[in-house]
Amino acid sequence: MKPDLDLSLYLVLDPDLCGGEEGMVATAVAAVAGGVTMVQLRAPKWKKRQWVSAALALKAALGPIPLIINDHIDVALLVDAAGVHVGQQDIAPEMARQLIGPHKLLGLSTSNAAHLAAVPLDIVDYIGVGPVFATGTKLDASPVIGLAEFAKLMQAKAIPAVAIGGIGLGRVAALRAAGADGVAVVSAICGQADPQQAAQALRLEGADV
Amino acid sequence: MKPDLDLSLYLVLDPDLCGGEEGMVATAVAAVAGGVTMVQLRAPKWKKRQWVSAALALKAALGPIPLIINDHIDVALLVDAAGVHVGQQDIAPEMARQLIGPHKLLGLSTSNAAHLAAVPLDIVDYIGVGPVFATGTKLDASPVIGLAEFAKLMQAKAIPAVAIGGIGLGRVAALRAAGADGVAVVSAICGQADPQQAAQALRLEGADV
Repeated sequence: MKPDLDLSLYLVLDPDLCGGEEGMVATAVAAVAGGVTMVQLRAPKWKKRQWVSAALALKAALGPIPLIINDHIDVALLVDAAGVHVGQQDIAPEMARQLIGPHKLLGLSTSNAAHLAAVPLDIVDYIGVGPVFATGTKLDASPVIGLAEFAKLMQAKAIPAVAIGGIGLGRVAALRAAGADGVAVVSAICGQADPQQAAQALRLEGADV
Repeated sequence: MKPDLDLSLYLVLDPDLCGGEEGMVATAVAAVAGGVTMVQLRAPKWKKRQWVSAALALKAALGPIPLIINDHIDVALLVDAAGVHVGQQDIAPEMARQLIGPHKLLGLSTSNAAHLAAVPLDIVDYIGVGPVFATGTKLDASPVIGLAEFAKLMQAKAIPAVAIGGIGLGRVAALRAAGADGVAVVSAICGQADPQQAAQALRLEGADV
């Protein structure tokens, strides 16, 4: 059965910001206690043996919270992750679905109206939309969308969408009001002194809408 | 059924040296006409959509010559490649075999006696051993082994082995004499003016032993 999809607060783990594998597991556990609803492992600089190790550790630590693997479907299959997230230059959604079967979540990164129009709605479970604001945590990010354009994209969307890119406290309510089903964050939790409290504050702001 | 294993002349394609996807396909076709027995796609800088595209083009062009995918088992599964090659920091051989099943070739990179002793012989089909000589085509290569140490490793091996690292014309016969079942080359074919002739010359030198 496919895991429930709750995009409310989606943590994308970054090993550089989170203190490597151990730091990522500790951060993820604290953040889930603070209200994070999904966790993605994203470590583009890592070799895959480390991906597998971290993914197994995260899966064991996260319990029922879905663990999503960025890009590497082989790793996701090996650790029986809850799902996979692919970008526009990664394995195409149709092929990704072919590999993961019908019971795993599939997310797709989108950055503009053309991307949104091309999403195969029967194959993809949710889209990431961004970067809404400028971000330093993804080196190959697309051009910044901005809040006004993001709101337009949300009106056009036909699938659950999580906002991503430069999101922190003070920006969540506006994104939810614009139609986002949730927000994805990296540095707003990873590397914060108290990840649990940081997650709680982000959840609270999202709940205000 | 598992493809036949003939390591005699193993071409590792490098998109930088071969002129991208198109150049790699043209090079591989010419090299196979010159006697290359296996072809590996290795493009660590590429995103996976390009991997899939190149792998499909190579598979269509190569006919019965086995196409091996470096590192990315998801790509290998998608294109139904003949096999997968993993390094010491990639997905572990036992896990790789679990993903690819019993009918695909599995290669493993090794660099020293400890690596050789740890090879799971019932799981791996062949090993790469190197770098035997200094190479500029793999940035994260292990320390150079040298011919004398390579010969020792060949005496200890219990599985087919292909020599790799800095191999070109004039070095093949000594490596075969030392016990290599074949040689793997990158720049000795990729980027050569006449890849077919380059492959022929390498095959001829190997056949002298």
